[in-house]
Amino acid sequence: MTTRITELFSIDHPVIQGGMVWVSGWKLASAVSNAGALGLIGAGSMKIDLLREHLQKTKSATSKPFGVNIPLLRGDIDELINVILDEQVKIIFTSAGHPGRHIEKFKKAGCTVIHVIANVKQALKAEEVGCDAIVAEGFEAGGHNGLDEITTLALIPQVVDAVKIPVAAAGGIADGRGMLAAFALGAEGVQIGTRFAATVESSAHEIYKQKIVDARDSDTIITYHNILPVRAVKNPFMEQVQKEEIKKGMTRERMMELHAKGRERKGIYEGNWEEGEMEMGQSSGLVHDIIPAGDVVQRMMQEFEEAKRKILHTRP
Amino acid sequence: MTTRITELFSIDHPVIQGGMVWVSGWKLASAVSNAGALGLIGAGSMKIDLLREHLQKTKSATSKPFGVNIPLLRGDIDELINVILDEQVKIIFTSAGHPGRHIEKFKKAGCTVIHVIANVKQALKAEEVGCDAIVAEGFEAGGHNGLDEITTLALIPQVVDAVKIPVAAAGGIADGRGMLAAFALGAEGVQIGTRFAATVESSAHEIYKQKIVDARDSDTIITYHNILPVRAVKNPFMEQVQKEEIKKGMTRERMMELHAKGRERKGIYEGNWEEGEMEMGQSSGLVHDIIPAGDVVQRMMQEFEEAKRKILHTRP
Repeated sequence: MTTRITELFSIDHPVIQGGMVWVSGWKLASAVSNAGALGLIGAGSMKIDLLREHLQKTKSATSKPFGVNIPLLRGDIDELINVILDEQVKIIFTSAGHPGRHIEKFKKAGCTVIHVIANVKQALKAEEVGCDAIVAEGFEAGGHNGLDEITTLALIPQVVDAVKIPVAAAGGIADGRGMLAAFALGAEGVQIGTRFAATVESSAHEIYKQKIVDARDSDTIITYHNILPVRAVKNPFMEQVQKEEIKKGMTRERMMELHAKGRERKGIYEGNWEEGEMEMGQSSGLVHDIIPAGDVVQRMMQEFEEAKRKILHTRP
Repeated sequence: MTTRITELFSIDHPVIQGGMVWVSGWKLASAVSNAGALGLIGAGSMKIDLLREHLQKTKSATSKPFGVNIPLLRGDIDELINVILDEQVKIIFTSAGHPGRHIEKFKKAGCTVIHVIANVKQALKAEEVGCDAIVAEGFEAGGHNGLDEITTLALIPQVVDAVKIPVAAAGGIADGRGMLAAFALGAEGVQIGTRFAATVESSAHEIYKQKIVDARDSDTIITYHNILPVRAVKNPFMEQVQKEEIKKGMTRERMMELHAKGRERKGIYEGNWEEGEMEMGQSSGLVHDIIPAGDVVQRMMQEFEEAKRKILHTRP
């Protein structure tokens, strides 16, 4: 399939794997890229040296295009960027911050830059500073989430109407039906998180992967509203945070006390059900098995075609 | 277009107009039905006698099928139901409660019963008690909202996988692109609120209609989380409620103090920007004009066909 997203990255399928903390290492990224989609290294949970190792291993494991996701809020962001450019990575996804400060450096190095946004204002800003494309991510997505709580279905058409650069849709998509829905709204690609987190090549803990499979439609919640919203599965820790938040509200200081102490690592990487944050999206209710990442890509494309054939049968 | 939803109601287009408080009177419902979609009277804001008047006027104004939406939580629900059955209304949408208690009465009277749900469990329950179809409504919808905050994109495929009865999608849909997305996910119809609230025939105040047109993607918020969530446009009143909720949390008692004093009437029907609740969905960012309801139906069907043609051009 050819869209501006497949052309931008020289990939076969308009599917981008999310660069998720504690999940998206070289194994996952290279498996996805080898399947003809776009694999991403999730730099968010990696120290500088570990990131370099993962970039090098990805290059050994695939000759196809791959990219890296970097959260711009990181304290060591300049060092992080230097490693990425030094390792000649040409596709950079930026999130959690403003890409404007760094874009000249990226462009000089010949990189394609995609920024993750969660409202129309951010989309316009990303286009204005020179991003090549955007990922528009809705409220249903796992992990860190926009403050405005705009859902993918409401967000995509409004973003597509506002910008000229291509848009990939993220949040709530785990199969070919969701992918077709995103295309109906005007997206030219999709970014998939949760479905890829529950794959053989995901570096997450087996318990976390199984919790994605077990999760149903109502099993994720947002906490830290109005500060730095995070979506994760309801577990003892998240329920405790939610209870406190409903009763007393939440301050930034209290959030840092609760969230910032390695909760993501504990949940996702160590599989600690009681005390960790197991980030996943509402699409976890659509994930019923742990399979190889390449099979996810293949299955999604088949389902997309099936869903398209069905739509054709609805005639006026 | 023929789907199980169009067949169930004997309508031409698989579009249902939401039965909204202070918005959906006989003028709107009959205009929508006359355009070949399904108009609904919103009984929620009507006293018994007024409801009877609106039902009678709708019957005079259209010979096409129409229905009524009733919130089951109302104190005078039995009286309400008696009027509806007495007036021979044959299509009943139930929301905010459990339809099980009333369904036998409806079925005996030969009615088609559709229940509005916001998660898979409620969908299964509605099917089990004998509803003919369901409306699955996502977090992006305006007005009263589900506690689980599941978005339309995540909800529809999970509901469609769970039940055998036909599903109409609601929440976040204001044009033909959204309608096609809903169909891609497996819905066989759509229920549209906000777009119909900003029509000539809507009984809402002109100021409220204009606020829908003015609203952008980020302009609605949910308040009364975890109690009885309501989505409305950010205005002085809603911002004050939000501030209090973030700082101190919210109790049911405090919510009743704030919300239950005619806030919806004040906002929607009286156009009071300062003190009312102007309920609208995130799709308000997609509404750019106040037009006749029949034009909404016609435009939506045209956009749906256009979006379908575009999808066909994405070939593998």
